[in-house]
Amino acid sequence: MTAAVPIQGNRFVIIGGASLVGSATAAELLDAGAGEVVLFDNFAFGSEEAIAHLRDNPRLRLVRGDVMRLPDLLQALEGAQGALLLAAHMTLSMDRDPWGGLDVNVRGVQNALEACRVNKVRKAVFASSNAVYGYGPGVKGDLVEGMPFHSAGSPPAAVIYGATKIIGEALCADYRKKHGLDYVVLRYCTVYGERQHYRATNALYIIETLDKVRRGERPQVLGDGSETKHFVYVGDLARANRMAFEAAATGVAVNASGPAPVTTLELVRLVTKMAGGGPEPEFIPEDPGRVRLTTGGAFDIRHDAAERLIGWTPRVGMEEGIRRLIAWRDGNEPKPAR
Amino acid sequence: MTAAVPIQGNRFVIIGGASLVGSATAAELLDAGAGEVVLFDNFAFGSEEAIAHLRDNPRLRLVRGDVMRLPDLLQALEGAQGALLLAAHMTLSMDRDPWGGLDVNVRGVQNALEACRVNKVRKAVFASSNAVYGYGPGVKGDLVEGMPFHSAGSPPAAVIYGATKIIGEALCADYRKKHGLDYVVLRYCTVYGERQHYRATNALYIIETLDKVRRGERPQVLGDGSETKHFVYVGDLARANRMAFEAAATGVAVNASGPAPVTTLELVRLVTKMAGGGPEPEFIPEDPGRVRLTTGGAFDIRHDAAERLIGWTPRVGMEEGIRRLIAWRDGNEPKPAR
Repeated sequence: MTAAVPIQGNRFVIIGGASLVGSATAAELLDAGAGEVVLFDNFAFGSEEAIAHLRDNPRLRLVRGDVMRLPDLLQALEGAQGALLLAAHMTLSMDRDPWGGLDVNVRGVQNALEACRVNKVRKAVFASSNAVYGYGPGVKGDLVEGMPFHSAGSPPAAVIYGATKIIGEALCADYRKKHGLDYVVLRYCTVYGERQHYRATNALYIIETLDKVRRGERPQVLGDGSETKHFVYVGDLARANRMAFEAAATGVAVNASGPAPVTTLELVRLVTKMAGGGPEPEFIPEDPGRVRLTTGGAFDIRHDAAERLIGWTPRVGMEEGIRRLIAWRDGNEPKPAR
Repeated sequence: MTAAVPIQGNRFVIIGGASLVGSATAAELLDAGAGEVVLFDNFAFGSEEAIAHLRDNPRLRLVRGDVMRLPDLLQALEGAQGALLLAAHMTLSMDRDPWGGLDVNVRGVQNALEACRVNKVRKAVFASSNAVYGYGPGVKGDLVEGMPFHSAGSPPAAVIYGATKIIGEALCADYRKKHGLDYVVLRYCTVYGERQHYRATNALYIIETLDKVRRGERPQVLGDGSETKHFVYVGDLARANRMAFEAAATGVAVNASGPAPVTTLELVRLVTKMAGGGPEPEFIPEDPGRVRLTTGGAFDIRHDAAERLIGWTPRVGMEEGIRRLIAWRDGNEPKPAR
């Protein structure tokens, strides 16, 4: 038995699809010959802009719906072979609205999996996060799958976010155990690239630095800039999503991280350089009232398991990825294939 | 500033009160002079039997309500100085009904905290669990607060249960941060004692062994019986709940564990002896289909922090606690004070 779902000719639904990752994955699946790609979104975080470049593709369909309304999902997933579960609140919106965040990240995932079960969807790919390893000084060294969740002393919204991703993964495992639903969990690092938004705490280092440099202002680094962050380029991640469907693997959770981690100071300097140069960064003290995802030690989120189980490794380093982000921001993005 | 809430003359609401822990805590608070103790329960798991021995107390009030109905809680918590948040699905019912379990353990806690906020309740005590340390071979040695959550390879329902307790704790922290609500989290070990039920995986070792010995059957031990379990006697836990209200502490999470851990084989032998003796236990192989909470190594859930922060230590060892459980089961329980 294989849990592989080929892309060619098949129908895929991307739940939370009008987004950074959703639009890139839609393009990836369409390029690979998908019969139809459905973008399901309630446009709470998603936007028309994020998918404008794809709207002319006749194999793309947009469905307005809400993960909190099971009937919306039951209908959208009819005839689908694969479902990508992206819809989620991240830490910043979880802080603003823990009520809505827990709805979407817990019940929304249950609804999506239930709709997969009813519609006999062959495979679900669940967008988890390296937040399942948590925060603080316990998160250090090589981060590999199976490591525990560190939450002591972390901001409540960050703890809640990470715990909802653990629950989402366990719900996938529960649906496989009880109903035979095949799935792959991808634990995304912070995603960046074309159609970058301002909703991810760590990606703010990229997009806010770019904004400041373009305005001639000094970019900002919190603390001394030695903190590790690990990103993944959105095109690499879109390919990981596709390969998770195509892989024989099921019932697994793997990291999806870029080639290497960076420190926040390295990152701010890199974005400044790529944006054409600018003033030296300003080191600002940490604001205890702001939700931040600090870690004490250096870490490297390993993607060995993703290579072993779904055949994926990242290709795009941060310099190239940021170059593409800036090209998109400047309106110089290459046109998508049809 | 102290977050102490004296018991004398004050009103307390026990959410999920018609239960093992709820009834014992109600008795403890009434004995300490509480003006009124309200038991709020929907009787999904709670029972009239669990509170029958308290029903004559004029300071006890029973309110039928559901934690999923915020208006029920808003009304029940009017005029309360303290709220004890007990209502929860445990692992076995989370396995049977993850929909209802996530409702109660996530939204139910949010509703309870929201009702505390609206009613200006002075302190909430949240019943968390040593499940926040997780399961498997990573859980070993002295378990102290701040340790991470281990979930790799564990049954989905157990992972979901533990993660909901982490979320419940974080929701308390969020309400304190945003709304100033004082709280103490108690991380309960497996509770046993008078009014023991069959809903807690680990406590089955006590109550099922007692049942089997009384029927003249051989008690059962899963595996080789070397697995560590750590229990707490319900009367000790009721006192911990009371002391959590009375303590100046707020914004803390502490373990509430009995004097010492036991192995499952020691426990089965002890219950057999206390029940008057019986046949040797039968060692049965582990059933991978059954939800079990296995750990690889020996551990000891430390209660040093509870002693330091709320002045509590457990008093009742397992021999005495099981003696009391058996006395209750045999109808020889001492009458409660009025």
